[in-house]
Order: sequence, then structure tokens, then C-alpha cells
Amino acid sequence: MSKTNSGNFFEDFKIGQVIAHATPRTVTTGDVALYTALYGPRFAVQSSDAFAHQIGYPKSPVDDLLVFHIVFGKTVPDISLNAVANLGYGDCRFLAAVFPGDTLSATSEVIGLKENSNGQTGVVYVRSRGRNQKGVVVLDYVRWVMVRKRDPNAPAPAEVIPQLPRALAPDQLGDALPVIDVRKYDFALAGAKHRWGDYLPGERIDHVDGMTVEEAEHQFATRLYQNTAKVHFNQFSEGQGRFGRRLIYGGHVISLARALSFNGLANAFHIAAINGGRHVSPLFAGLTVFAWTEVLERAEIHGRSDVGALRLRTIATKDQPCAGHPLKEGDAYHASVILDLDYWALIPR
Amino acid sequence: MSKTNSGNFFEDFKIGQVIAHATPRTVTTGDVALYTALYGPRFAVQSSDAFAHQIGYPKSPVDDLLVFHIVFGKTVPDISLNAVANLGYGDCRFLAAVFPGDTLSATSEVIGLKENSNGQTGVVYVRSRGRNQKGVVVLDYVRWVMVRKRDPNAPAPAEVIPQLPRALAPDQLGDALPVIDVRKYDFALAGAKHRWGDYLPGERIDHVDGMTVEEAEHQFATRLYQNTAKVHFNQFSEGQGRFGRRLIYGGHVISLARALSFNGLANAFHIAAINGGRHVSPLFAGLTVFAWTEVLERAEIHGRSDVGALRLRTIATKDQPCAGHPLKEGDAYHASVILDLDYWALIPR
Amino acid sequence: MSKTNSGNFFEDFKIGQVIAHATPRTVTTGDVALYTALYGPRFAVQSSDAFAHQIGYPKSPVDDLLVFHIVFGKTVPDISLNAVANLGYGDCRFLAAVFPGDTLSATSEVIGLKENSNGQTGVVYVRSRGRNQKGVVVLDYVRWVMVRKRDPNAPAPAEVIPQLPRALAPDQLGDALPVIDVRKYDFALAGAKHRWGDYLPGERIDHVDGMTVEEAEHQFATRLYQNTAKVHFNQFSEGQGRFGRRLIYGGHVISLARALSFNGLANAFHIAAINGGRHVSPLFAGLTVFAWTEVLERAEIHGRSDVGALRLRTIATKDQPCAGHPLKEGDAYHASVILDLDYWALIPR
Repeated sequence: MSKTNSGNFFEDFKIGQVIAHATPRTVTTGDVALYTALYGPRFAVQSSDAFAHQIGYPKSPVDDLLVFHIVFGKTVPDISLNAVANLGYGDCRFLAAVFPGDTLSATSEVIGLKENSNGQTGVVYVRSRGRNQKGVVVLDYVRWVMVRKRDPNAPAPAEVIPQLPRALAPDQLGDALPVIDVRKYDFALAGAKHRWGDYLPGERIDHVDGMTVEEAEHQFATRLYQNTAKVHFNQFSEGQGRFGRRLIYGGHVISLARALSFNGLANAFHIAAINGGRHVSPLFAGLTVFAWTEVLERAEIHGRSDVGALRLRTIATKDQPCAGHPLKEGDAYHASVILDLDYWALIPR
Repeated sequence: MSKTNSGNFFEDFKIGQVIAHATPRTVTTGDVALYTALYGPRFAVQSSDAFAHQIGYPKSPVDDLLVFHIVFGKTVPDISLNAVANLGYGDCRFLAAVFPGDTLSATSEVIGLKENSNGQTGVVYVRSRGRNQKGVVVLDYVRWVMVRKRDPNAPAPAEVIPQLPRALAPDQLGDALPVIDVRKYDFALAGAKHRWGDYLPGERIDHVDGMTVEEAEHQFATRLYQNTAKVHFNQFSEGQGRFGRRLIYGGHVISLARALSFNGLANAFHIAAINGGRHVSPLFAGLTVFAWTEVLERAEIHGRSDVGALRLRTIATKDQPCAGHPLKEGDAYHASVILDLDYWALIPR
Repeated sequence: MSKTNSGNFFEDFKIGQVIAHATPRTVTTGDVALYTALYGPRFAVQSSDAFAHQIGYPKSPVDDLLVFHIVFGKTVPDISLNAVANLGYGDCRFLAAVFPGDTLSATSEVIGLKENSNGQTGVVYVRSRGRNQKGVVVLDYVRWVMVRKRDPNAPAPAEVIPQLPRALAPDQLGDALPVIDVRKYDFALAGAKHRWGDYLPGERIDHVDGMTVEEAEHQFATRLYQNTAKVHFNQFSEGQGRFGRRLIYGGHVISLARALSFNGLANAFHIAAINGGRHVSPLFAGLTVFAWTEVLERAEIHGRSDVGALRLRTIATKDQPCAGHPLKEGDAYHASVILDLDYWALIPR
């Protein structure tokens, strides 16, 4: 019996199975500093304890995406070590603020299974939850991955495909955001005057700046998240693989796009939910990431007059500035597109 | 109306105008650890809470240059996004110690304007101030940048050129340094026996070691400072530009030279003022930085018997060891010189 | 008289001499976050304050190897600045847990001297000790280095070669580990079910994963440890040297191998002692590190029923997966081997 983890194969997953993932992780101001150095985010609430305290937080919360990446990283050894592809994620909600000093752990429940017709692989749907040291769920999301079968002759399980919402309803948003005192939210210090009411559905915003990615950067990030997926770290094996290069963790692209989006969305400081995300094509070191955003919807949150919700679709590209809002070429994505992300952000009214 | 920041152009600046810069920033021990990893500084006061406490600080103060870079970074989106060149800075004083947990914010006042004869650009002089969460000014400096005009036909403003001191007077130094107990300053632990009285004007010190810079390193640093200047990050656009490469933030060179200068200036642990600084030529990744220092002056600080001031001129070079103190070739700088920095450091007597 | 440190030469060392090394260093959660980003370790005790507290620590201790690297780094300017080669180390014990906030300093005592027959160099043996701010010894180890003579005509000292144990005795282990409550040690959260009794002498474990190293990564690490050895940082001079490249700090390889070894040794969370270590061949950026481990011994620790000791031999390779346990080719090491490390790890019973 090997003592090393060879990961789960498709036939190892059962509907209703709950997996407790390894390595709880205390998040610290050290992680926050590294996150700043990796992406350069400038949202005032996450950057300044004083600013956060002024509007009603005890201190700066940890960036939502840092929470996402840490929880996601924990699920990798059990869920996607033998994945052929990450197909998507959705129904993702941030449910409680995380602060430096909190300890995160993760569990996943298998909620869907579908063997592919080739008999070699199947799709596994899991609902993953991140909890803090008090057991409070801080993050809840679904992802689905294509996983290899260990034995092609293993029988196919009964097919279960979960129903997922195309988007979270506005009233499901805001749990991780305390009611804030907007009179004390200093828009000059936050970097822009634009509030919820200033954004219109259909509006498109080019985030202008580009950020080139180095191998050391994405490796630092992915190890910080304790994400062990081999494709990000092992040039020896990847050099002999499909791309001849290390693949950059998709979450790295999301964080880059989010940090670039400050330029145009400076006050949309909290991601409340991710409706869906697709890594359209891979990113490699040496390429430059750009981003643009379309406002899909503007919604009130029942009972809250402090903030409103913007449903945003952020597109990230590689080596392609976004003044022309690149997205599709005919029915397919434009060759430069690497990320298509649909999410809800909250912003003062 | 675009929601993205396109920065200020020359005609947007008015004498007396005060700009509150975005994104206040809480400095943490995470930032300090990253600063150590970026440059490898070894000054005992900034490295050890126990050492700092022993001589009279509550705990280790944040490195002066980390404070400078964070404050400087905040000014970039408003002052130098459309800059053609950073021409210089001076009259820079460190006025209060900064500790992990403090939150820094920045403002700038326009104190000088001079349109260039080509009508395309002008020079803007700003006095920038960094404040902590209590409103105490921790850093005060002037910089001047050449900024593009939006409209070449816009009328030239009245010319105002501020008078700046060639060097701060010794009695203007020391505000950020509590009176220390030199008897409890352990020179062996600090790494050298040399005190204020051991340095002589005219003395030249080769700092010996060289440090090669990687793209990932200067990008990490510049993002950590939330400095958004495009030239440091965007290989896609810079690859088509003047140098064909990303330009390294000048402050990165200052911090490298300062860390190298420990070898010869181990007890000169506090930068009290920067009299002037010039980035003589650009640095690119892959090159190796060396440094040497000339002692320009030695001065007492009125009323203080614990420390004295050394006025230092530190020269940094690229791919050129400094045993021969490279500086000029005829009237011009030696081709290897990248930095010419004139500053006051304090050192136990 | 130069104010720069040119390091000690062979004839500067005297038996019994004690050197207090410069720059005490407060270890913070920032350092811990960087350590995680550099290597991706996943041991639950060091990762989660909640997990550590549950079993009996006040909070997560700092990774043993981070302590080792910081203490080691302090010794470099005095011991090995003029070293031709690091020959080995041994008799290394971790004697007290280190926590964020502790300040480490280091001293070394010269315990052996042997001039080489060529008259150009000699071997210096030092016992180095790391202490916390209370003066408690947290780390004690011996290393020996080949150091240049300043003057080949200087007389040879009397030869003294210290006797070192081949391995620490089991009863010398465990001082840095409080008695833990194994009932509260959650093996699922820790990532594996294997306890002390599950490992057998002679067992070989391939740690499977590979990690490619970038220049920026090892430079970040080595500066974080304030290790000033020139060969790691200066491409200008190293480019003209023996390898034409910067050499990676040997401790970086140890930490990579240790982090990879989680896959197979997830519960062996504490390194109690290093019996001996040899850097068999150099590592350079761009190469991929793999590792495998042989269990050499399994030992009880007198008076402790909570944990037992495993004596492990971990081999790291470059660009060579370890499924075949590469080690020797005839009498010599396999060309891929870079590290041969013999150490004691503690693991719940």
C-alpha cells in the first residue's frame, strides 16, 4: 500500500459522499501582503484597516479571491488530482467576511456524476464549502471537473446532474458584508466617485492596463494557496506535455483581472457571488493580461440601502488590449480571450 | 464619460491645488517580510523588535524606504500617469517613525509649473506628504515630473519654480528617531563597530556585493507599493516601446543600493532625509546592481548626543563592480551609473 | 582600514573562539507566509493555529527549516564568506519551538581546524547556536567548511577534528515538541492516516511531485534568510565563474524536498534533528526538483507515548523523477542526485 496520495478517480466518487480536505490554514497579514505583491489590488476596504473600520468593519477583511483560492487549493488533492479539465464553477457565494487570524478549512460533497460516452472519463460535480475556525461557512460553491477512470471497465454510476442557477438572486447576496456607513465611505480616498447608481446595464469598461506574468509569480501564488496541481509547477513533465510549458492556475487570471478592474470599478469592493466562470484558453508565463467588463444587471438588495449589486461580466485576454472589448469571432471566443467571468459585486449606493 | 482614470495632464494642474490620493494602506509585518525578501536589508533596528526595543523604540520601525515607496506609489495615478519622465526629487524628510499596523495615506500640493518651450509638455512640481492614521505627517518631499499636455494649444500657466534647498540643514533631521540609548546599542549584533566619529568627509566605501534583478522581483515590489505606472508591468506595450523591455521602478534601485550599503554603513540605520536623487539611466531585469558611497559631510544634530548625521552620496551601477568608484567620464556620468543619491543618514555617536 | 566586511580567512579562526553574528531577526507571520509561497508546505501543525492549539501548542510553530535557514544565514558573513565549499553539517538539534514574534540571534564556536596539505585552504568546524529573545537555545548544529587562507605562508594551526555522532540518539529528540494530545490530532485534516507504527525500516517512498525553481524564487528565499553568500545573487560575477550561473542555496533544496515529502509523510510534522546532510551536486534555476525517502530507523522516545521518531534519508534529484529511487551509479551518486539528507522526524503514535 502506497503512502502517497494518488488522488481519486471517477469511480471513487459517490453521490452524497462528503470529503474533509487536508491542511487547515490560518490566513495572516503575511498572506495579505503577498496577495498585494502578486496582483497589486487597490480597493480601499481591503487595503486599509482604518478605512474598513471607519465604515463598519472591525478591520480590513481578507480579499474575497484570496479566500476562494485557499479553499479551492484544499480541494485539489482529493477532487482534481486526476482531472483532465476543470469544466466550470458556479453557484458561488461568499457568506462571511474572513479576517487575518482566521483559520480556513474545506469540505466537498459529491452532488453529481456523469460518465462520458468514451468510458474513459466522467464528470464529477462537487459542492465545496470553506469554513472558519468557528465552523461558520465563509464560502460555498459548485465546481465540475472531468476526471479519469482508474478502470475503463468499471460500471457507470447512475447519472445525476445538479441543477444550478444561471445567476444568484440579488437577495442571496450580502451576507459577508456588514451594513456599512456610506456617509463615512470616503470616495476620494477610495479612488473614484462612481456609485451603484452610476453604472448602467450594457455599459462596457476597458480596464486599460496590462500585466505581464512571470513563472515565479504564478508559482508563488499557487503554492501560497497550497494548491498542488502538478501542471503549474513541473516544467520537467510539462515540457514533454501538450503545451510544452507550465500552465498557470486559472484563479491567478481571475485575481489579475479583478485587480486590473479597479480602474473603472474602484468602489465595487466586495465580490458577493460568482455566477459562473470559464477558463476559455490557457495562460502561460511571458504573456500580458488585459481585461474589460460589461455591466449585465444592476440590482437592489432587499432591506439594504447602503449598498447595491452589480452583475458584471469580466473578460480577460492575453496580449490583447481591450479598448475594442474583444469577445467573440463568429460563434467562438476571440483567440485572445482567456477568462469569461460572471459575478456579483457590491458597491455603495 | 469614462469611469477609468486617464490621469492628469499638464493643464489640469494648478498652483496651490491639493490632491488627496487614493487607497490608504495599512503596513504590516507581511510587508516588512516581503521587503526583506526583495532586498535583503540587515540593519538591526529594522530587523529585530528586541534590538529596537532595547535602544528605545517600542518595536522595530518600518524601513524608511518602504514608507517612501508606499507613499510615492499613491501619488502615481494622479501625478505621473502621463509623465514623460521623473525629473527629480528633493527636500525629503522622514518626520515620524512608522510601525506595522499604521495606515498610510498621501496628499500632494502643486507648488510649481513650467511649460516647456515645445508646447507639448510641462514640468509639474508637487510637495507630497504621507500621513499615518492619526494624521501625523511621516514623510514630506518634493518631486518634479515632465507631464504631457492634453491639448498643445492650451495656454501656458504663469511660471512658478519653487526654491528647494540643495540639502536639508542638520537641525531639520531626526524627528523620526526617538532619542536612543547608545549604551544599549550592541555594535557586535549590529554588524560593525563604526560610529559617527569614524567616518570622514571624502571617504569612499565600495559596498562590494552585487545583486541581479529579475522581472518577477521588481514587479512584486512595485505592486506591493500599489504603484501603477504602466512601464513596469506591461511587456506587451513596452516590447513595442523605446527600450523594448519593462523599465524597473527607480525606487527599486534605491532600495537595492541601500541594502548593499549595509556592508560599510551597518550602523547608519535611519535615513533622515533625501537631499536629492537622480535616476541617471534605466535598469532592466537580468542586470546586476552594485553600489559605492562617498561621505559628503558629517554633522552634529543640535541637542542630541546619541546620534549624528552623515551626508552620503550613494552611486549605484549596473554590471559594474564599484572598487574603482565609477562616476563620471569627462562631464557625463559613466555609462554604468544608474543612480546618484544624496541623503542624510543617522548613526550612533 | 576598510569598513566593509571581507570575512574571516582560515588563519583568523582559533579553537574556542566564539563569534556573535550580526543582525538579530524577529520572525513574523509575514516570514511564514513567504515560506509557504516559496515551497508550498502543507503540514497541518505549521499551517493552522487552530490545529496546533488543539493538540497542545499555543499556536502554530514556525517551520523548523525556516528557523534553520535564518540562523544559518546569520553565520555566513563571519564563517563562510571566503568558503570554497560547504563540506557538511551534522549533530543538529531543534531544541525549542519558535513562534511568530520571537527574535532569533546566532553565535558560533570554533571547534575544529585542519589545514589542507596544499597550504592554500583549511577546514573550519563550528558549532552554531540560534537563540530566541529570552536566550533559550532553539537550534544547535555543527557545520564544516573549506575556507581560503589569506596568506599561504601563515603557519598551520594544531589539528583538531571534532568527533560527531553519526546520528543523534532517540533520547536526544523531542525538546522542541510539547507533549501533544494525539486524540485531538485530526488525521483526516492532517492529510493522511499513517502513524509512527505504520512506517517500517527499509520502506521507500517516492514523493511523486516535481517543483521547478526560478531565479527569483531562490533569491527571494536567500535574502529572506539574510544570507549574503555572493554566489546566489550575482550573475555578473557568477556568469564568469565555474558554472556560468548563480548557484542555489543548498537550504532551498532541503526545504523543497521537505515540502514534497508531505506526500507520503504528512504526519511527520516536526524535524527534531539533522544527523547529516550533503549537497551532492549544485542546483540551478530552470531545473525541476524531485525527492524520495527511505525509512532508516523507527525509534521510541523515552517517556513519550504521544510521538515516536522516524530516521529518514531523503534524496533530492534534479530533472529526475524518483519512482526508481535514484541514488548510486556504482560507487558514485547518480548524476541527478543533489541532496542526501539524514534526519529524525517526529510523528504521532
